[in-house]
Amino acid sequence: MKIGVMNGPNLDRLGKREPGIYGHQTLSDILDRLRQMAVSAKVELLDFQSASEGFLVDKIHEWTDQHLDGLLINAGALSHTSISLHDAIKASSLPAIEVHLSHVHGREEFRHHSMIAPACVGYVSGFGPKSYELALEGLLTIIQQKDRT
Amino acid sequence: MKIGVMNGPNLDRLGKREPGIYGHQTLSDILDRLRQMAVSAKVELLDFQSASEGFLVDKIHEWTDQHLDGLLINAGALSHTSISLHDAIKASSLPAIEVHLSHVHGREEFRHHSMIAPACVGYVSGFGPKSYELALEGLLTIIQQKDRT
Amino acid sequence: MKIGVMNGPNLDRLGKREPGIYGHQTLSDILDRLRQMAVSAKVELLDFQSASEGFLVDKIHEWTDQHLDGLLINAGALSHTSISLHDAIKASSLPAIEVHLSHVHGREEFRHHSMIAPACVGYVSGFGPKSYELALEGLLTIIQQKDRT
Amino acid sequence: MKIGVMNGPNLDRLGKREPGIYGHQTLSDILDRLRQMAVSAKVELLDFQSASEGFLVDKIHEWTDQHLDGLLINAGALSHTSISLHDAIKASSLPAIEVHLSHVHGREEFRHHSMIAPACVGYVSGFGPKSYELALEGLLTIIQQKDRT
Amino acid sequence: MKIGVMNGPNLDRLGKREPGIYGHQTLSDILDRLRQMAVSAKVELLDFQSASEGFLVDKIHEWTDQHLDGLLINAGALSHTSISLHDAIKASSLPAIEVHLSHVHGREEFRHHSMIAPACVGYVSGFGPKSYELALEGLLTIIQQKDRT
Amino acid sequence: MKIGVMNGPNLDRLGKREPGIYGHQTLSDILDRLRQMAVSAKVELLDFQSASEGFLVDKIHEWTDQHLDGLLINAGALSHTSISLHDAIKASSLPAIEVHLSHVHGREEFRHHSMIAPACVGYVSGFGPKSYELALEGLLTIIQQKDRT
Amino acid sequence: MKIGVMNGPNLDRLGKREPGIYGHQTLSDILDRLRQMAVSAKVELLDFQSASEGFLVDKIHEWTDQHLDGLLINAGALSHTSISLHDAIKASSLPAIEVHLSHVHGREEFRHHSMIAPACVGYVSGFGPKSYELALEGLLTIIQQKDRT
Amino acid sequence: MKIGVMNGPNLDRLGKREPGIYGHQTLSDILDRLRQMAVSAKVELLDFQSASEGFLVDKIHEWTDQHLDGLLINAGALSHTSISLHDAIKASSLPAIEVHLSHVHGREEFRHHSMIAPACVGYVSGFGPKSYELALEGLLTIIQQKDRT
Amino acid sequence: MKIGVMNGPNLDRLGKREPGIYGHQTLSDILDRLRQMAVSAKVELLDFQSASEGFLVDKIHEWTDQHLDGLLINAGALSHTSISLHDAIKASSLPAIEVHLSHVHGREEFRHHSMIAPACVGYVSGFGPKSYELALEGLLTIIQQKDRT
Amino acid sequence: MKIGVMNGPNLDRLGKREPGIYGHQTLSDILDRLRQMAVSAKVELLDFQSASEGFLVDKIHEWTDQHLDGLLINAGALSHTSISLHDAIKASSLPAIEVHLSHVHGREEFRHHSMIAPACVGYVSGFGPKSYELALEGLLTIIQQKDRT
Amino acid sequence: MKIGVMNGPNLDRLGKREPGIYGHQTLSDILDRLRQMAVSAKVELLDFQSASEGFLVDKIHEWTDQHLDGLLINAGALSHTSISLHDAIKASSLPAIEVHLSHVHGREEFRHHSMIAPACVGYVSGFGPKSYELALEGLLTIIQQKDRT
Amino acid sequence: MKIGVMNGPNLDRLGKREPGIYGHQTLSDILDRLRQMAVSAKVELLDFQSASEGFLVDKIHEWTDQHLDGLLINAGALSHTSISLHDAIKASSLPAIEVHLSHVHGREEFRHHSMIAPACVGYVSGFGPKSYELALEGLLTIIQQKDRT
Repeated sequence: MKIGVMNGPNLDRLGKREPGIYGHQTLSDILDRLRQMAVSAKVELLDFQSASEGFLVDKIHEWTDQHLDGLLINAGALSHTSISLHDAIKASSLPAIEVHLSHVHGREEFRHHSMIAPACVGYVSGFGPKSYELALEGLLTIIQQKDRT
Repeated sequence: MKIGVMNGPNLDRLGKREPGIYGHQTLSDILDRLRQMAVSAKVELLDFQSASEGFLVDKIHEWTDQHLDGLLINAGALSHTSISLHDAIKASSLPAIEVHLSHVHGREEFRHHSMIAPACVGYVSGFGPKSYELALEGLLTIIQQKDRT
Repeated sequence: MKIGVMNGPNLDRLGKREPGIYGHQTLSDILDRLRQMAVSAKVELLDFQSASEGFLVDKIHEWTDQHLDGLLINAGALSHTSISLHDAIKASSLPAIEVHLSHVHGREEFRHHSMIAPACVGYVSGFGPKSYELALEGLLTIIQQKDRT
Repeated sequence: MKIGVMNGPNLDRLGKREPGIYGHQTLSDILDRLRQMAVSAKVELLDFQSASEGFLVDKIHEWTDQHLDGLLINAGALSHTSISLHDAIKASSLPAIEVHLSHVHGREEFRHHSMIAPACVGYVSGFGPKSYELALEGLLTIIQQKDRT
Repeated sequence: MKIGVMNGPNLDRLGKREPGIYGHQTLSDILDRLRQMAVSAKVELLDFQSASEGFLVDKIHEWTDQHLDGLLINAGALSHTSISLHDAIKASSLPAIEVHLSHVHGREEFRHHSMIAPACVGYVSGFGPKSYELALEGLLTIIQQKDRT
Repeated sequence: MKIGVMNGPNLDRLGKREPGIYGHQTLSDILDRLRQMAVSAKVELLDFQSASEGFLVDKIHEWTDQHLDGLLINAGALSHTSISLHDAIKASSLPAIEVHLSHVHGREEFRHHSMIAPACVGYVSGFGPKSYELALEGLLTIIQQKDRT
Repeated sequence: MKIGVMNGPNLDRLGKREPGIYGHQTLSDILDRLRQMAVSAKVELLDFQSASEGFLVDKIHEWTDQHLDGLLINAGALSHTSISLHDAIKASSLPAIEVHLSHVHGREEFRHHSMIAPACVGYVSGFGPKSYELALEGLLTIIQQKDRT
Repeated sequence: MKIGVMNGPNLDRLGKREPGIYGHQTLSDILDRLRQMAVSAKVELLDFQSASEGFLVDKIHEWTDQHLDGLLINAGALSHTSISLHDAIKASSLPAIEVHLSHVHGREEFRHHSMIAPACVGYVSGFGPKSYELALEGLLTIIQQKDRT
Repeated sequence: MKIGVMNGPNLDRLGKREPGIYGHQTLSDILDRLRQMAVSAKVELLDFQSASEGFLVDKIHEWTDQHLDGLLINAGALSHTSISLHDAIKASSLPAIEVHLSHVHGREEFRHHSMIAPACVGYVSGFGPKSYELALEGLLTIIQQKDRT
Repeated sequence: MKIGVMNGPNLDRLGKREPGIYGHQTLSDILDRLRQMAVSAKVELLDFQSASEGFLVDKIHEWTDQHLDGLLINAGALSHTSISLHDAIKASSLPAIEVHLSHVHGREEFRHHSMIAPACVGYVSGFGPKSYELALEGLLTIIQQKDRT
Repeated sequence: MKIGVMNGPNLDRLGKREPGIYGHQTLSDILDRLRQMAVSAKVELLDFQSASEGFLVDKIHEWTDQHLDGLLINAGALSHTSISLHDAIKASSLPAIEVHLSHVHGREEFRHHSMIAPACVGYVSGFGPKSYELALEGLLTIIQQKDRT
Repeated sequence: MKIGVMNGPNLDRLGKREPGIYGHQTLSDILDRLRQMAVSAKVELLDFQSASEGFLVDKIHEWTDQHLDGLLINAGALSHTSISLHDAIKASSLPAIEVHLSHVHGREEFRHHSMIAPACVGYVSGFGPKSYELALEGLLTIIQQKDRT
């Protein structure tokens, strides 16, 4: 089984800036933890980070051709406006989980709407780096349920 | 440590009606699983279900007086309109997690807005009964982090 | 065959207050007339009135378990805001008719929208107590057509 | 006593097209049933159908001059936008009932608003052809009550 | 003369929680002061608190039957959404004063609109517990003026 | 202690026009009563009326320089639109109470919003001339509480 | 010089219905007075009334081909919604004056917007039948000024 | 009989600036023509121009005390926002006509709404200086009709 | 195979007025070109133009009864508001193409929304008379594809 | 003559995914057909596809410098939000045609608005791959007309 | 060359109140610095401050008659609502620069819209007193460029 | 001290296209002038231009790591929609100034809103190339003030 973990704009800065808000963990730390979880669940983990909407879209196409089984996506700021990502996820037919580190509904008005949400099947936010782990755990459950049917 | 699990209108029907959509698990099944998790985490689990907004508000007050440490709340249809619940959660100063079985953002427009979200610190939806487990796990992490500080 | 007649907030005051607007008939008078119609149509009539949204929701669950065949509902002020009632009716799979004594579209703006309408199959308003009789007659027609198919 | 039954755009196609949705009854079938009801209630029934807003307005004027006692109107698509019909009904001082075959609140957003409703005194929708019969029965009740005062 | 003092959701927590914001006075303290004012004005004071919209509506009916002369209502969070309370107050024909402890216009957007205001005749907010005393004084003035006419 | 009483456009006409709505008391009558209250509370009362937004703003500056302790303001029609008054009150750091003779929430839509409310700390409306007396009493309470801290 | 006077839906009922609101003058009376004004100004007067938007549009085309010099139009209820009339007037390049008997801005919200206004050059409303005379006088002034340039 | 002609902000610049748009006539020229009409109609004409909303409001009060019979008002830019002027006109009980030189509906969106319209009884726009003459003629007709009743 | 070409309000004026904008071709010229295309494609061409919404609706019914195979419709100004036409096209089950001469999205705001679009399957605008030819070509392709399946 | 055919995000997936909706033709198939049309019209065809808004903008600049004569653009999801593309097309002064495979107006609300439309001169949608051919044919007509003037 | 510096409501309080936010500089300090800049640029500086919209409008007329060459305007709270100032600036044909001390887009919603912006040619905000100097420098550049052409 | 000057989509075309609107200066000319200013202020100037949102975001990260002291950003069309840039600027903690050549508030509606403004501390627009110089000067002032504290 293959799971893709995709991160959008500014998430490469994690742990380097504003540790008061986002904590000291870097994106690598998060991915390491996810990889450990993946190993014990016998799952292969692919990851990709980019600030370019187009590159994220291309990568979803590429992963789909490589027979990915599920997608974890923190599209960052693009979550709120990108119809392209919405379409790419939808077209991939992959079960996708939207992840956010912070509790986006408690932030600015323009972060309350998610354009990619209708193309996803789950949503986790507000637990900091822990959000990714919960999302991966949830995604595995969804995939296993699908397999049983 | 004490955690409260609160369920709003219509959630007592879980597993009895529309199993095609909501699955065959009843609310009791979900609570049983949460209780098992609670035991291994040495946490006491309180639970309450009601279709009456007023009774839910009263119970939050009661639990607050009993020194609850955290709240898991699936307010069902009341999530979208109840300012009373928003105020009760906020006044309780409890870390609260909003839970939904289904991916509410993929349903009718009037379910996209959560009135209680600004009073909560986390949000999990779309994983079916698994949503509760992820939310409990996340809630415990948040409480432990708070304790450490 | 069993039909439930449900009345929401303030409808217990019918005939006692503002007879200039709502007429001199009480809710009992209306229910008596409906019961006469029911007898001649060989239908059992259940009725319930409450100002509490939660109790109305609970009663719909209870009636559903008692194998009700159809629902007549005048949710009063709750018609315009209650997602809980909407969900309860929808979950019950019952054919439901929304009834109003007055012609609500000719009143304040906030009464023009019905939150429960999408969960109902018919709508009668503006005929005073006669609205209930027309709604019952219409509901029986709909149930009979369904039975024939 | 004289009652007018007015039908707007596309209602002449009833029973000919999309019987799966609207049933096999034609507008003539409906009018026949209303005429039988009218005979037993000793009421004269006038009817008019047109897709032209202007012709419907003109007919309301004509019927008003012929001392009509009440109006049953299914303005079809014009219900949602026609200020002219609203004004014509209001100017006629006739008690008017708005009728719809389908449960319009369960359809597209643009059908939820009725421009002619504030000029009417009652509303019946969702019972198919039976809607007309219930509306006629209700209209007769309203006229009789007015006569008594 | 009889005056009713009605308090909605969460107001029973007054003085117990968040004294930094709402002060150290409990609802009992406030009612005690109002009762002293009532004694010197030779007025009987009835009071009721509930988090349940339905129970508040029922109590307004009950008080109306007991020939109440005026109503002081702090409906808390329900002030902004409850059409049922609006209808109950209006149907009671009682002069009613809307009271708030805090200056609601200086808080969240969703607290700026009052659904019950159009059914009331006066409004006092922002003076903490003193708001109730000013509202009672104002209500007595209004009732005395009505009696004189 | 010095309190300023400020009245905006058209309030100089009080008692002269439309006594059916606003009563027979003039603005002078109201100010006389406030002055009596002020004398017994050992407070100096300043007053100003103008239909000009700019003059009202200037007077707030002038009073602030004269070490005013609190402001009572009925800005009339300007209440709903004046950002200048909002800014002047805010810049003065004075505790200010918004007063209205009539129950503005029961009037036209454009009177429901108050632009100056966020710069004030209390709000009294609907008691006719008595509104001013209640507002003054409330303002004195607020100032005394501040002095104690 | 030729001037066209066009009247839309329901204006043929003038003087026959609701004389309390619209006065006792019929549309013929108004046209007679305009014709007298026309004679003394040496202007030929054409007139047309219809409840059908399409017929009004056709007549504007016909009049344009007959070299009309100016248009007086009271489109009644169609004023607020008809893009067709807007386009027909604009395409005709005729100076057009929008006329209303009543002061439409003092009536329902949906009458405040005029769809044909941007295609007209002047606007007169609120003077009853006199509105037409003022509009004709104004139109003649505009045409004369154009001729002089 | 006394008629007041009131002009708001920037109208004193008429004829001095942008003659290409507003023509070469000054406000004095317009008032001279109105005075000639007034003489032959045996009417006294008062006039006032100011850019200050407050002074316009004060003048309406002053004129009302001097027993004015009717008001012609071109409030310029204030027409679209001034609630104070709306209230002053309404309180004066004077028949008032809103006048505009240009056809405001054909200009920017923010000029389409008139805040003072609901306090007026008639409206004339688009005829340049001639607008004032038509408005005066219409106002006299309205006053004469009122006198006859 | 039979194709209907329907034109709404003001399109009969094509080529006669405003040739600077719409060109010198008349509606007849356009229809002639379409007829040539039809001949070579062995298709029969029916056409209809009217400014009356009702007549357009009636013609769609008539053509449907005559077994039309596809519809080309330029409803002109009615495109933006007519629910009747939307319903008529939908009820006909015909593949319909919306055509516009000008690029409507580059014109006034009120022309950006098409009410009939959801009932059509294709859309061509902005090519002047050429729009009709492209639309016909596209419609034929769609019909041929349907026939093949 | 040189024509550019530009395709935005996800269009490289054409024919590979969701053939039920988009058909079995790939983007290459479409471009092949356009190239055949181009050869017989003696036109050179350039093409470019990217999911990156920035690369599409850059390519428009590059093509403009290479003296392109017209642009065919299916910006996919970017059509609805990209101001950059709007500006790039506008700055290029090229006649541009917006193309869509599906009938976007019949899909989700957020696809109804086109941000690039005001910078284009024509629009074709709903004919599947045929849309491109119609658009190319229309574009050539427009260019030829421009050359003649 | 003459430049006018105009300041609206509350700006006379600069430096006296809330120095924490607005700094210790008074309006005089700012004007002194601008005058020094003016001297070295051989420009005459006129200045005016008022809280009255009408007086600001009058002064713009006066300065226009005195052949001003450019305007620097910080209309304060009036920036967001004053159509009169918009019209006065536009009518003056002066190049005008809108200035704000604070970064208004980062403050309350109602400060984000500028009503006078469309009548200005430049905008500077967020640099505190330095905003005025930048604006003056920019205005001089614009005037010099105009002179050169 | 290091200052970054960042330019978004289409700004590389400056001076090459539409010189009537944007003047004959290229982006290089602007940067040359800024570099001269930088030299005399002993500041190092970095610059970057791209049409790709992602590349701009990456560059802000890179510059932040290189200890930039301040940012000048003209994000072009991306200013109005890019939440990614907003977040990147905010995360960098750099004082940033938004620059626009033209007076964007006087252009299309969709350019009035700036998504990046809340992440900036200053804003300069409308002075053409001069905007950059003013912005640089303002930015240096802000940085020097920060250094002093």
